[in-house]
Amino acid sequence: MGEKNLGGKYKSEALEEILGKEFKVLDYGFIRVVDYMGNDNSIVDAARVSYGRGNKSVKDDESLIRYLMKHKHTTPFEMCEIKLHVKLPIFVARQWMRHRTASINEYSARYSILDNEYYLPEEENMLPQSNINKQGRGDFLENWEKQNGIALIKESSEKSFENYFAMLNLKENPNKKGISREIARITLPVNVYTQFYWKIDLHNFMHFIKLRVDKHAQLEIRKYAEILLEILKIWVPICYSAFIDYNLFSYSISKNGILLLVDILANNKKNLADYCLSKREIQEIEEIFKIKITE
Amino acid sequence: MGEKNLGGKYKSEALEEILGKEFKVLDYGFIRVVDYMGNDNSIVDAARVSYGRGNKSVKDDESLIRYLMKHKHTTPFEMCEIKLHVKLPIFVARQWMRHRTASINEYSARYSILDNEYYLPEEENMLPQSNINKQGRGDFLENWEKQNGIALIKESSEKSFENYFAMLNLKENPNKKGISREIARITLPVNVYTQFYWKIDLHNFMHFIKLRVDKHAQLEIRKYAEILLEILKIWVPICYSAFIDYNLFSYSISKNGILLLVDILANNKKNLADYCLSKREIQEIEEIFKIKITE
Amino acid sequence: MGEKNLGGKYKSEALEEILGKEFKVLDYGFIRVVDYMGNDNSIVDAARVSYGRGNKSVKDDESLIRYLMKHKHTTPFEMCEIKLHVKLPIFVARQWMRHRTASINEYSARYSILDNEYYLPEEENMLPQSNINKQGRGDFLENWEKQNGIALIKESSEKSFENYFAMLNLKENPNKKGISREIARITLPVNVYTQFYWKIDLHNFMHFIKLRVDKHAQLEIRKYAEILLEILKIWVPICYSAFIDYNLFSYSISKNGILLLVDILANNKKNLADYCLSKREIQEIEEIFKIKITE
Amino acid sequence: MGEKNLGGKYKSEALEEILGKEFKVLDYGFIRVVDYMGNDNSIVDAARVSYGRGNKSVKDDESLIRYLMKHKHTTPFEMCEIKLHVKLPIFVARQWMRHRTASINEYSARYSILDNEYYLPEEENMLPQSNINKQGRGDFLENWEKQNGIALIKESSEKSFENYFAMLNLKENPNKKGISREIARITLPVNVYTQFYWKIDLHNFMHFIKLRVDKHAQLEIRKYAEILLEILKIWVPICYSAFIDYNLFSYSISKNGILLLVDILANNKKNLADYCLSKREIQEIEEIFKIKITE
Repeated sequence: MGEKNLGGKYKSEALEEILGKEFKVLDYGFIRVVDYMGNDNSIVDAARVSYGRGNKSVKDDESLIRYLMKHKHTTPFEMCEIKLHVKLPIFVARQWMRHRTASINEYSARYSILDNEYYLPEEENMLPQSNINKQGRGDFLENWEKQNGIALIKESSEKSFENYFAMLNLKENPNKKGISREIARITLPVNVYTQFYWKIDLHNFMHFIKLRVDKHAQLEIRKYAEILLEILKIWVPICYSAFIDYNLFSYSISKNGILLLVDILANNKKNLADYCLSKREIQEIEEIFKIKITE
Repeated sequence: MGEKNLGGKYKSEALEEILGKEFKVLDYGFIRVVDYMGNDNSIVDAARVSYGRGNKSVKDDESLIRYLMKHKHTTPFEMCEIKLHVKLPIFVARQWMRHRTASINEYSARYSILDNEYYLPEEENMLPQSNINKQGRGDFLENWEKQNGIALIKESSEKSFENYFAMLNLKENPNKKGISREIARITLPVNVYTQFYWKIDLHNFMHFIKLRVDKHAQLEIRKYAEILLEILKIWVPICYSAFIDYNLFSYSISKNGILLLVDILANNKKNLADYCLSKREIQEIEEIFKIKITE
Repeated sequence: MGEKNLGGKYKSEALEEILGKEFKVLDYGFIRVVDYMGNDNSIVDAARVSYGRGNKSVKDDESLIRYLMKHKHTTPFEMCEIKLHVKLPIFVARQWMRHRTASINEYSARYSILDNEYYLPEEENMLPQSNINKQGRGDFLENWEKQNGIALIKESSEKSFENYFAMLNLKENPNKKGISREIARITLPVNVYTQFYWKIDLHNFMHFIKLRVDKHAQLEIRKYAEILLEILKIWVPICYSAFIDYNLFSYSISKNGILLLVDILANNKKNLADYCLSKREIQEIEEIFKIKITE
Repeated sequence: MGEKNLGGKYKSEALEEILGKEFKVLDYGFIRVVDYMGNDNSIVDAARVSYGRGNKSVKDDESLIRYLMKHKHTTPFEMCEIKLHVKLPIFVARQWMRHRTASINEYSARYSILDNEYYLPEEENMLPQSNINKQGRGDFLENWEKQNGIALIKESSEKSFENYFAMLNLKENPNKKGISREIARITLPVNVYTQFYWKIDLHNFMHFIKLRVDKHAQLEIRKYAEILLEILKIWVPICYSAFIDYNLFSYSISKNGILLLVDILANNKKNLADYCLSKREIQEIEEIFKIKITE
């Protein structure tokens, strides 16, 4: 039979189990896996084409995947592909689509009428402007303030949808038409839900996750990225584990950061200013390596 | 001195003249050329590297550029680059950013507060839903209906901005902060203005223009694309003229369309159904070649 | 069960049949389909996400695919993916890899020793330099001249492999090593066979085929492209047929070419020079539309 | 005048100085800067568009560039572009062209005859196969062995060119033509020199340099990458310095590597096996942080 039954070798049984299943995100959003190609074996086989007979059987599959991940040999990871159906607010979609190495087919409000569905944050996610952007003193919002904010979002979203539908049905006479959809929708807010098919290779999928589960990413897209991370784990478990160790929870320490650590490890005390590190970077090194550097 | 003074050879004097100049689009939008690389000579020189001595001096520059355009030899056109500063409504930006082969840095409403600037269509552009989408009988809108539509857009846009600013300044105490910007802005409509730097190579620039000056593109992005076409003409006039002739105003006639034309030209009358052409395609051929086909 | 069994809906039974099968090309080359994602349904479903309810059920699947192909709505075609294992001479691989929108893992001669396999053209393919490049009078090669050419290729290829193996095993002592592989291989000719895994989406796959089955492509890569065309037909038969009609055998007629045809169709005789068409373009129009234009 | 004279603001005086200058590489190769767009200011201005008024004047230019580099905010670096003319052996070009995010126009041996120029390594670079690939004991090559290797490369390269020219001029009669160029050249070795124009944005330029100055890259492409690094320094000195600190000489330490360092720094001795680190990774950490871990 040889390689005939390739479908089996490159199948992910666990992912097949959840094909089509809706993972709920936010109030109306979801992620569904629509289709995929390849599994952990696909990564390994692609890498082995490159190495040829040169290191056949040198490494077992798991070590090979970890080696590829550690050394950022990214092309074998491009050999798997996943296609998702995602429903999400427009402001999240706008962040999502900044990733250019993917294929997208999005619902078009020029062709079709949008449902009256918009995102309202939960109370716990109504947070004040962060301090880090130097916008003045930080403080907490009272519950009534949060509720107030949600009410304001709700009010203008409702108003927008009201006017949207009014434009679409301007005439009393049902045989007549209103304003074109492509114009009417321009008054809808960016918390309105849209949806798209999104297809991306495994390498870029992990890159997307890395950037969007990050604490600097906006909370709403993070909620989606966390689901993507779960899907990654189900799809390619060996790759997922290598991703966690060598990418997601790795730390890239700068040239000067290395010099500092070398001196600390050698008990070679120097003036901290000599390392030309920013305050924030020193703080980061303290947190990562659980040490106290500042005198 | 040979090639030393390359800057001169690859300069576009006419484009330098308009660097930084604002071309107004819509009510608050604009396009400005920020920087660029190369001119018609860059296309020619890149192509000549490929051909080497093989056809040196065979063609003059203009013929070579027209030849490249006609035969879709696209790589020499990638050798020029342009960078623009564009201000545009979010719903236009969303269409714009579907083109993935460009670099973008967009104004972030997570960091900064948006001005109270939103797009309001002019009366003449408030059109009813088109017939072609099978949404019922077509008809014109009365002036008062158009004015009504504009008033509706204005009303909900104003409401949204009012609530946006209310959230940002929730507290009476000026030392205290309101809702974070990244949340407050989710209630703003997609006709709000954003801006970005956009950098793209000449080949993809022309592809963008082709798709967006098309009559099927939404009127608002077409207004921008028309400015881009003007900029193309100023920047690389020989390339522009070849683009007009071999791309923008060319027509791609299908295999069956060719068979039909061959028979018409040979006075070889057949049953129209034999060509398996859709009604719309037959109509298109009639328009392009100014003939009457349907019996 | 709804959409649960998606695997079935997006399966190409005919392609599954040939998974892993070697299609022979040239003397040692082959193409094998290793894996794939999606079928004609995938194109249709992705397009329908965009159109939403706006034109649901308006078109049947085949008409929709033909419409998308005709109007170059390319994104739904990006929603399918194919992965091939290809063995081919290096000079063909160099042309192949100019297509950047694909993923590749190639056999590395830095890691592994290459087999003594190189491409020798068949006699019928030993052709003289073409006239079109202005290299003097055209003429046919005699059979003995062709045989002579093949013998010359064979001689220097053999010599190169001889020296390659000599460098790898410089030492008589089997415990000792010769020159590194990455250096030794630099003396091998570009007709040596290499191999790679190649993964590409359907839109770019068709673009590749279009460019490489063209009569201007080198004969050797054309042989590969012809197999790819067969694979396309097996994989997505509706898409294949639309590709043939609206892309592969379509003709892009220039603005001036249209003006000429309009006048011919209207029996509106003018001076041919008025159309500013190159001789070659006039000749092309004569061939495509089977007419005699030149007076 | 405001922003009118943008050309000045985004000019790199130092790079203008070396436009067109040939940097020699290997025996016949070179790199020349043909054109460019932007400088350190371009990075800063693109980033400031994103941040808007939110943190205007918060950071000086250098700090901002270092911040962007450290946090891998890559899009502002895409806003600069460089175009090079490179002459290099085919086997180096093959590695070079694996980077897909660039534009290329290469000399075509289908159109033009190649000069009798091929790369011969210098004696010091004729190295034996490395140990790391488990190909047996390592040992040095004697000088006569290296000379022998070079002689072998020379012999088969000469033979190949001899047969190449013989095919091109098969006929004694100068009016007659030989074998086509596209066929004749298939017998030429991969150490033959080719040349191309190569255009890439700054972000991808740095990524290329990072991968190709690496000690695992083949020596010959490393020679080119070292020149590129020099060009980077001349072009965008602030960016260059940030690249050195936060990218080229940074180290990405894995999740488990961090755990190990944390314990070492806390004098918290554990069994080394508990960290699940490969021997090679432990060795790497020892080298980077100048410590002795293995008991």
